[in-house]
Amino acid sequence: MNIVLSRDSGVRVMENTVTNAEKYFGQFCSLLAAYTRKTARLRDKADQLVKQLIDFANTENPELRATMRDLAEHLAKVQDYRQAEVERLETKVISPLKFYGTQIKQTRAEIKKFKHIQNNEIKQLEKLEKLRQKSPSDRQMISQAETSVQRASVDASRTTHQLEETVDAFQKQKLKDLQKIFSDFVTIEMVFHAKAVEVYSSAFQTLENYDLERDLQDFRDKMRGVYGHHDTRPLTNTNPSASVPWSFASQSAQSTVQSQRKEEEVSEDDSSEEALVEDLTGQGQGLHK
Amino acid sequence: MNIVLSRDSGVRVMENTVTNAEKYFGQFCSLLAAYTRKTARLRDKADQLVKQLIDFANTENPELRATMRDLAEHLAKVQDYRQAEVERLETKVISPLKFYGTQIKQTRAEIKKFKHIQNNEIKQLEKLEKLRQKSPSDRQMISQAETSVQRASVDASRTTHQLEETVDAFQKQKLKDLQKIFSDFVTIEMVFHAKAVEVYSSAFQTLENYDLERDLQDFRDKMRGVYGHHDTRPLTNTNPSASVPWSFASQSAQSTVQSQRKEEEVSEDDSSEEALVEDLTGQGQGLHK
Repeated sequence: MNIVLSRDSGVRVMENTVTNAEKYFGQFCSLLAAYTRKTARLRDKADQLVKQLIDFANTENPELRATMRDLAEHLAKVQDYRQAEVERLETKVISPLKFYGTQIKQTRAEIKKFKHIQNNEIKQLEKLEKLRQKSPSDRQMISQAETSVQRASVDASRTTHQLEETVDAFQKQKLKDLQKIFSDFVTIEMVFHAKAVEVYSSAFQTLENYDLERDLQDFRDKMRGVYGHHDTRPLTNTNPSASVPWSFASQSAQSTVQSQRKEEEVSEDDSSEEALVEDLTGQGQGLHK
Repeated sequence: MNIVLSRDSGVRVMENTVTNAEKYFGQFCSLLAAYTRKTARLRDKADQLVKQLIDFANTENPELRATMRDLAEHLAKVQDYRQAEVERLETKVISPLKFYGTQIKQTRAEIKKFKHIQNNEIKQLEKLEKLRQKSPSDRQMISQAETSVQRASVDASRTTHQLEETVDAFQKQKLKDLQKIFSDFVTIEMVFHAKAVEVYSSAFQTLENYDLERDLQDFRDKMRGVYGHHDTRPLTNTNPSASVPWSFASQSAQSTVQSQRKEEEVSEDDSSEEALVEDLTGQGQGLHK
């Protein structure tokens, strides 16, 4: 019975291996699928932010408009890389983990088959023991039982070898796949983060280069309504036929001309930059959805 | 009326600026808050994965156990950086955007006050026009009305200056803050991604160095139950008093000794590595929750 027990503990090691693989690979699969879904949600939120940045940019003066559009473009690029991350996680991490369900079922069936044969061996051994105690003189019966035990043992031994090979192959594949799947996971994440660093570094430069003063001057010009034609003298008489003047607009004629030039630049910018936004949103949609 | 209209368009520029700021800063705030929440969800899922990796590691042989624990530790470190990202986004991006609600309300109140005064000026102008048409000869009435118009114009002009200053300061602060907030956003993201690249590079090395063959040998030793003591002769006789032998375990005495040494290593590893896991999970909880 010593060896049967030893063999039994070997089977327990095999069973535990398969049970653990089933349990943990299943959990890894669903957790990594959830991780991937959360990553996709993050991408969706960032995509919304990109849209809002572009909408906002269109309401602002040229300088801030260009900066915000550039920022939006960079942020959209990060989301494209995030989308690539999501797709690669699905293909190289989640799919291989899902595949384990089938392999585990096959190995389980092998173990069940073996346990059936092992039980038969034990039954034959018990029968032999009983005979020896009850009818120790019945040589023929004992001999027959011994043959049955021998046959059952040979069966069990052969099946054990088959099972060993199956579980060995399963374990080898498991370890290989585990290394491969997690290496792929780490690589996919690493590549995404490296790309994100690159894009954000460039986005940071864009924001650093933003010329706030130029933008503020544009705003001041607009606010003071320099595009209208009106007197700049303060109200010092009560001449009823003149329109009421005040010291509202205080800029010189020169600044008015400057502003008009800027206004022309604005409309020029409008058409070319609108095309850019179309490219940008078109690209974003194409890569994500 | 020309100047009143021009002044009116200046006010419209100011109103649009404040309205757009209210609209877009509000949207940026809620989108970036959602983005931060999604980032926190991603961190939670990865934390669960860390826990499962440690649980799984504890069911495996020393080689894979060490590798999986190391991978879990790296993944936990990325989540610590992600947590830092979440906290910094809340402090340096979402809070300043929330603060805009108050500033916008103040500027809105200023604009409302001005519009009231501007309407009064228009009312006085209309009154004067009516008087001129109805009673062009009533010099005294017309003179009184002219004085009222003048007073209303001075009021409007003074308030316009105040409003201009308020909106100018608001716009300057808005542009400054916008540049600061989005620079901070980009910097926070950049720092997180850079740290993640660093940690994942190290995690990748861990997985590369994993010795699959050593692990597989451990498994084979366990599966074949080398720790039990039993005969290796095949069943060739029917001697009833002997326990039933077979060719189940085929390894040499040397490999048995080797395996026993490994088994000792395992128990030594157990205590020291369990302490590590406690450190690890303790650290993770402390930083995240």
